Amino acid sequence: MTGMFLVDADTLAARVTAALRAAGASAESTAATTEALMHASRTGIDSHGVRLAAHYATMLRHGRLNPDPALTVRRTAAATAVLDADDGLGHYACDRAMDLAIDMASEAGLGAVGILRSSHCGAAGAYALKAAEAGMIGIVTSNSDANVAPFAGAVPFHGTNPIAMAAPVVGQQPWLLDLATSSIPFNRVRLYRSLDRPLPAGVAADAQGRATTDAHAAEMLLPLGGLDYGFKGAGLAGLVTILSAVLTGATTDPHMIPMTETDDRGTARNVGQFCLAIDPARFVGKPAYDAAMAGYLGRLRQVPPTPGGGPVMAPGDREWETARRRAGDGIPIDPDTRRFLGL
Amino acid sequence: MTGMFLVDADTLAARVTAALRAAGASAESTAATTEALMHASRTGIDSHGVRLAAHYATMLRHGRLNPDPALTVRRTAAATAVLDADDGLGHYACDRAMDLAIDMASEAGLGAVGILRSSHCGAAGAYALKAAEAGMIGIVTSNSDANVAPFAGAVPFHGTNPIAMAAPVVGQQPWLLDLATSSIPFNRVRLYRSLDRPLPAGVAADAQGRATTDAHAAEMLLPLGGLDYGFKGAGLAGLVTILSAVLTGATTDPHMIPMTETDDRGTARNVGQFCLAIDPARFVGKPAYDAAMAGYLGRLRQVPPTPGGGPVMAPGDREWETARRRAGDGIPIDPDTRRFLGL
Repeated sequence: MTGMFLVDADTLAARVTAALRAAGASAESTAATTEALMHASRTGIDSHGVRLAAHYATMLRHGRLNPDPALTVRRTAAATAVLDADDGLGHYACDRAMDLAIDMASEAGLGAVGILRSSHCGAAGAYALKAAEAGMIGIVTSNSDANVAPFAGAVPFHGTNPIAMAAPVVGQQPWLLDLATSSIPFNRVRLYRSLDRPLPAGVAADAQGRATTDAHAAEMLLPLGGLDYGFKGAGLAGLVTILSAVLTGATTDPHMIPMTETDDRGTARNVGQFCLAIDPARFVGKPAYDAAMAGYLGRLRQVPPTPGGGPVMAPGDREWETARRRAGDGIPIDPDTRRFLGL
Repeated sequence: MTGMFLVDADTLAARVTAALRAAGASAESTAATTEALMHASRTGIDSHGVRLAAHYATMLRHGRLNPDPALTVRRTAAATAVLDADDGLGHYACDRAMDLAIDMASEAGLGAVGILRSSHCGAAGAYALKAAEAGMIGIVTSNSDANVAPFAGAVPFHGTNPIAMAAPVVGQQPWLLDLATSSIPFNRVRLYRSLDRPLPAGVAADAQGRATTDAHAAEMLLPLGGLDYGFKGAGLAGLVTILSAVLTGATTDPHMIPMTETDDRGTARNVGQFCLAIDPARFVGKPAYDAAMAGYLGRLRQVPPTPGGGPVMAPGDREWETARRRAGDGIPIDPDTRRFLGL
């Protein structure tokens, strides 16, 4: 990546920690946020990695984010709880919520925590991964501010609303899915504008909601599935909104203050998240699960590739390969982030 | 629909019941299966409706399906259970599994039942709907035999693996999502072959895994998201396989005997399903949930449509409108099914 500066993970994590602490974030908020940002930067999800530290620092300084939130947890049943994130960094809330979901699942077989009064949580996969590292299947959703048109609609309505799931694989890194329910993020539109390149078909729409490949004309995203099958992506975005916000008391996507495209840096956004842990020991049992998962993934990775394509990979394979490479080479940092972190 | 015969729902249900009973299915299996098939036929999901009764009758007669299964349930924790479907009709297993998930969720906040030794369950949404009718959010997944290529892969690997979710809406029919993780079902390919029409781009591939719009050359489906973003649909298909089969002890998709494209009608297929119920009363509380859901859906349905498009609908809106229309007009039945049911 031209213009990128390579930094080792320890140095980078220390600088992110220092920057968040300097912006006022509590030690606990900072630790969880740094861990989540480093997960994304290690695995190549740079859009959700350490580059976001500068954004969070701004929002901590302007009052949108509570630098020292007091998380409050209400246990409501054997397998359920609600976590009020007190307008702090979403990473801290999701980290603690998944810990609790795992604890509940170890007793009840399942555990789910609904989070309200939260904020952007970075890569949702970071928290699903915590469950997998504890031997469980983790599922995480987060809603976000509106920038995706509903199917056949002409204004942004849903957020890019990610669905993440991680599942343990014995002796290997977890299976790790982390996908937005739009085809691309809006940042991709901005990148294509700056490159003056056409967008792929069916991923974005103009101000009237008409599909366009002109990045300069694109005003909103289209849901996964594009013009023909976008009702599926829109339905999945709704699934995320219902679990993350309708169920938790968070603000639904079309009412949410934008993360970036606003001058309002002082009002909390009440983002919602949903964290679910599932214990395989309470289903087929851990040994049988482990054998089935290894067999399933082994067979998937052996699927012959299309002519000129492949190899066929499982969700997470590309990310873990990037993590291995970056562990040796360092993590690439863009110039703005390098300046912000004083590197 | 040209060539279609219209039948009122009560007559149709009675004929489906009689046909399944005549093929040996127990009264309980038959009742659950008829209910699920009628749900699909009422709401316009004709591919998963009463036309399947003839297929099930054949499989009951040839031994693939156990006509009088003894379901066994193993409760494993406060929120979890495993249901062995004893190779019976999948509808019966899913119906009972969701009942149990709802019961567990009313105590523990969540309930999940993993089903193994099951079979095709029709429209997964039928069981998610049971949860919504009980005031809960229901999520159902089912794996199926391989006919979708993995992203960049050249042989079928995953099934069309549906994800269904239903959520209660006070005073209205539930929000109801029921989608395959491929863009289209393989039946659509067969239909386009018979019509000699080209397929949409990015939904199917030839024998080498190359995308094709030639229905005659199409040998497998591509995952939702097509050539550019099919890694998302493939990841969702994997999510379904992991929850439905890896977690439950069912057979994974690439090892599963085909539902239809086989001469083997005597061997059970060990399909897997996963049924989850979530009680909103244990999160934000039912009154706040109801208000948020009504507000969210109201705003979605008011989104201005694209030029010449729209109206913007929520998942299920089209299906409930079809159900209203068919309640008056009758349910359309294709000629083969009409003959099979003696109508």
